[in-house]
Amino acid sequence: MIVTLAGGVGAARFLEGLVQVAPPDSITAIVNTGDDFILHGLHISPDLDIVICTLADEIDREQGWGIAGDTTECLTWLGRLGAPTWFKLGDRDLALHIHRTALLGQGIALSEITDRIRQALGVSVRVLPMSDQPVPTHVITAEGDMHFEEYFVRRRAADEVRGVRFAGIEQALPAPGVLSAIAEAEVILVAPSNPIVSIGPILALPGVREALHATRAPIVAVSPIVGGAPIKGPAAPLMRASGLEVSATGIAQAYRDFLDVLIIDEQDAELKPAVEALGIRAIVTDTIMSSMEKKAHLARVALRRHV
Amino acid sequence: MIVTLAGGVGAARFLEGLVQVAPPDSITAIVNTGDDFILHGLHISPDLDIVICTLADEIDREQGWGIAGDTTECLTWLGRLGAPTWFKLGDRDLALHIHRTALLGQGIALSEITDRIRQALGVSVRVLPMSDQPVPTHVITAEGDMHFEEYFVRRRAADEVRGVRFAGIEQALPAPGVLSAIAEAEVILVAPSNPIVSIGPILALPGVREALHATRAPIVAVSPIVGGAPIKGPAAPLMRASGLEVSATGIAQAYRDFLDVLIIDEQDAELKPAVEALGIRAIVTDTIMSSMEKKAHLARVALRRHV
Repeated sequence: MIVTLAGGVGAARFLEGLVQVAPPDSITAIVNTGDDFILHGLHISPDLDIVICTLADEIDREQGWGIAGDTTECLTWLGRLGAPTWFKLGDRDLALHIHRTALLGQGIALSEITDRIRQALGVSVRVLPMSDQPVPTHVITAEGDMHFEEYFVRRRAADEVRGVRFAGIEQALPAPGVLSAIAEAEVILVAPSNPIVSIGPILALPGVREALHATRAPIVAVSPIVGGAPIKGPAAPLMRASGLEVSATGIAQAYRDFLDVLIIDEQDAELKPAVEALGIRAIVTDTIMSSMEKKAHLARVALRRHV
Repeated sequence: MIVTLAGGVGAARFLEGLVQVAPPDSITAIVNTGDDFILHGLHISPDLDIVICTLADEIDREQGWGIAGDTTECLTWLGRLGAPTWFKLGDRDLALHIHRTALLGQGIALSEITDRIRQALGVSVRVLPMSDQPVPTHVITAEGDMHFEEYFVRRRAADEVRGVRFAGIEQALPAPGVLSAIAEAEVILVAPSNPIVSIGPILALPGVREALHATRAPIVAVSPIVGGAPIKGPAAPLMRASGLEVSATGIAQAYRDFLDVLIIDEQDAELKPAVEALGIRAIVTDTIMSSMEKKAHLARVALRRHV
């Protein structure tokens, strides 16, 4: 049993490699829902959709999000009606949001809905939202407190970041299956995702960090920071605002209380001693997932000594 | 000031003629919402959308409903996710349902939302939903009681009809503007719509029939029944179940308590005496709206002697 803590694009690509080298039904992905938000009255779960649609081989591979070949007829008309259009919603994509919202309205839990959606799309990896309760990530900026998607997509990460907060995190619970998956895992992988706004919300849920401390399974992370910059997304200002260096060493610092192994890129080989000084073993390899072979290679390295 | 009581396709075509011969901003359409229903968690208002999109020149003219050139990517994906697909929803079309549902969720009244939508689409005719409260039309069949759209679209009007009921009609109120529009109208037109499930719900709202009795403005209807059959839709079994003959005379019977003039088709010229025996003046003309010229002709006949 392999558990992966996952954000969006980086995690989805990592999981694609993982299913090449381990049985998909032995893998559980615990996915960030801090980016979830309501737009046009629809419940949008960006990271769940990215993970599921990538594993279903329906993702727009160029963007890393959205559905391949999708159109935006509905969004164009929403714009004509005066609705906001800053968050790109494809027509096929909208089916996920509409269906999820309809089922939530019937009182069905997000975890149950997510399970139905991944099964409908033929995904064998078990996909768990981190929580059935909304825990929206807010970015605290010089311009005020705003939802992560507002900061990242609408305002293009242009505001000065002072911190983040996970609204409602104290009242939220890990979704059914999250803590037991961690407790029963033979290996726990932390995908190359943003440590603050992708993995951070999962770790902030009551009981998750404790479960990571309690497990005897090895915990292996892949650094999303290569050569001093994230592969994708707004990790740099968010890490800095959290007092972390924007480097593989900063990732090791973020996870030092539970991490056993950090996989860092060849470009960062000189950081191995600094990571290991934190009591975390560093493995140096090519972490750039630019092909299916390289994704599988990275997964193999992550699993090699542990299962 | 011209008021038109309206259903869907027939009414929309009639209104298209009316705006050729009278200033659009002098026209108020009071539109049936008995067909409104919730599907995929979205509030769908078939008749409002047909009227607005026809007047906005966006309608799929072949079908009479839906948006010209629309695609069904979202619906296909909803089907993949296991959601029902019997009600055809186009991608552009969905924007109307999504936007309406989102605004309703913010506590905005259907009448206000409808006004925003028609303005956004450049429609000058004032379009009022008959009520801000849901009044779903149920068809009572040999197979049980079902929503009109379930009867008409999903089950293709195949069930034996025993009657109809307008659920919640006693508690519903005419939308703001409906009674005052009737009271202030110089002429009231009843569009060639289904008398039972399109015009019937409007007439059943508290105060509407009384307002029609009170007005001194002429009330002119166009018969939707030509040569013993409706131009479109399931009027025949619904009229029969309500004890009405499926003919222009049956239309006259349905409206006899308030109607002054009934326009009947040339094919039904022999029914003129039967209609007039009910105290309603019959005007015989070509009522088949197969071109814009013929739509304008019909509107001209409806208005000719009255404004």
